Amino acid sequence: MTAYRTLSWQGNALRLLDQRRLPGTLTYVDLTTVEEVAEAIRNMTVRGAPAIGVAAVYGLALATQHIVAIRSSSPLNDLTQAATLLRQARPTAVNLAWAIDRVMRLALASASLPLAEWRDGLLAVAERMAAEDVETNRRIGLNALPLIPQKAVFYHHCNTGALATVDYGTALGVIRTAHEAGRQVFVYVDETRPRLQGARLTAWELQQLGIPFALVVDGASAHIMRTKRVDLVTVGCDRIAANGDVANKVGTFNLALAARAHAIPFYSVGPTSTIDLSTQSGEDIPIEEREAGEITTIEGIPITAPNTPVFNPAFDITPAEYITAIITEIGVVYPPFTANLPWVVHPT
Amino acid sequence: MTAYRTLSWQGNALRLLDQRRLPGTLTYVDLTTVEEVAEAIRNMTVRGAPAIGVAAVYGLALATQHIVAIRSSSPLNDLTQAATLLRQARPTAVNLAWAIDRVMRLALASASLPLAEWRDGLLAVAERMAAEDVETNRRIGLNALPLIPQKAVFYHHCNTGALATVDYGTALGVIRTAHEAGRQVFVYVDETRPRLQGARLTAWELQQLGIPFALVVDGASAHIMRTKRVDLVTVGCDRIAANGDVANKVGTFNLALAARAHAIPFYSVGPTSTIDLSTQSGEDIPIEEREAGEITTIEGIPITAPNTPVFNPAFDITPAEYITAIITEIGVVYPPFTANLPWVVHPT
Repeated sequence: MTAYRTLSWQGNALRLLDQRRLPGTLTYVDLTTVEEVAEAIRNMTVRGAPAIGVAAVYGLALATQHIVAIRSSSPLNDLTQAATLLRQARPTAVNLAWAIDRVMRLALASASLPLAEWRDGLLAVAERMAAEDVETNRRIGLNALPLIPQKAVFYHHCNTGALATVDYGTALGVIRTAHEAGRQVFVYVDETRPRLQGARLTAWELQQLGIPFALVVDGASAHIMRTKRVDLVTVGCDRIAANGDVANKVGTFNLALAARAHAIPFYSVGPTSTIDLSTQSGEDIPIEEREAGEITTIEGIPITAPNTPVFNPAFDITPAEYITAIITEIGVVYPPFTANLPWVVHPT
Repeated sequence: MTAYRTLSWQGNALRLLDQRRLPGTLTYVDLTTVEEVAEAIRNMTVRGAPAIGVAAVYGLALATQHIVAIRSSSPLNDLTQAATLLRQARPTAVNLAWAIDRVMRLALASASLPLAEWRDGLLAVAERMAAEDVETNRRIGLNALPLIPQKAVFYHHCNTGALATVDYGTALGVIRTAHEAGRQVFVYVDETRPRLQGARLTAWELQQLGIPFALVVDGASAHIMRTKRVDLVTVGCDRIAANGDVANKVGTFNLALAARAHAIPFYSVGPTSTIDLSTQSGEDIPIEEREAGEITTIEGIPITAPNTPVFNPAFDITPAEYITAIITEIGVVYPPFTANLPWVVHPT
């Protein structure tokens, strides 16, 4: 287990590592209401598709603490409101909605229980989903291992490590598995503007893990792939459509274009809960736009003139044709994705 | 003429707008020695291939002020040393070497003159090159005009405006010409990490010019080209090889890949002094690597953990095959560049 803990349940509170303060300060916040959890997801105290999914179900568990009766005038009304609040915190990642749906199905199905038992059941499923996430990431790493050469130079975007999950990580988990399996690993880490998750979080995690790397600006990827050895690109995912289009942190599509131009394999890495077969293609995935201040200020200091107009999409869509394979806990999925993705989402 | 002045001669000093302090502070520094000029080029007080070329020749003019005799024990020795110092300040842009060579040829050819007349001659050619740069940029803009639709959405990288030249600008000069000619112009300006020339300089210049724009992160280009209207990409250049490969600010090649994937014309814009027929291809262009602090700190504040390893190439090479045309003051050059570039460098 990793020394730092992205999120954990403290009996009556959800404890989050405050990722906005890394790498300078390793500090935790304890949240006791669903409103606090929704705000922590929105302001990116916790981030990463798998981590916000699990944070949200703990948020529902917190909401049940404040419910005095299941069979109120409008049954389950309070919990449904809590679920709506959490769902709206960030629209692009589907893991959030997937996790909430799972808990809400149990809440509805078990509504005939006494209040305390009903509460316990929802908390138990939250705890189970947290444990599953770690196991899922381990399996993802092992499934990826046959794709990794003995000497492997990775290119990595954003943060997909222990900090983006309950523990271990997805795309960074693949790098970690390769390192732990004795592969000779080197990683180009792009800084990932505007929030600098690569510079602040991934670089820090790689230091903790003792994996050699170099931090680079986002615009250097094509140059590096043209002039240096790069064996593969591994990125995370926030939602995978039925046709294999992938929503992920803005900049991912640029990296995919650079990889294609240099015939470098490009892998999208994530749990099957990221696959949304009800979304036909990337066109149907909502792309969150965030505030201008993320670009116009750094550490609160303005870097642009006042009133500089900004367009700040937080994610992009990488079309399926640029993706070599999708690495999941069930297995590695190759094109054609429309035919092959259903086999991992509903394995037979 | 633009209200702010990138560089100007003040009788016995070179006055530079300190671009490191924009957009917060509009301030100038006066330099009186060649060492100060070399340092100002290195630390990017002045930047942009055309601007550093002209700054360098003024640097030579300053060096002559301290020369007491041309026919010293080693004739022209002091000036040759000054030229070497300036040449080494930044290795990638060829305009610097081109400008220095032109002045040194005159210095050598006119070495039989009395000292004062020799000095005057070198200063006169520096003044002439500064004036030529502005005229060149105007011609570049006019040559580009037939390529610009009535409603034109540009994508622009780094800074190529008045601040990158003596006045008016190259790629940004094209946008300015289109705006002044009544075209309905909109510009996506990428911030251009690590030095943020797009966010700090280009956004500021567009505000001064009243041209509408949106500032975006470098990683957003492929997403924007996939989901929004973009009519053309215009970028500057630091050196163009004989085969049409272009060295320019890191991130340019990524932008070219995104443009190609979306069938958007990609124009490299610059004076013919940027074309270096003695360099066969991009492989032969030296790519400057700059210090880690440009990536690990912003405004002096660390954004990464201590001892984070960094790879910081300042430029990249965009292969000729990705370039729709090269826009110069002589005309628009289309592929095949190996055949067509000599016609603008040595027009018949």
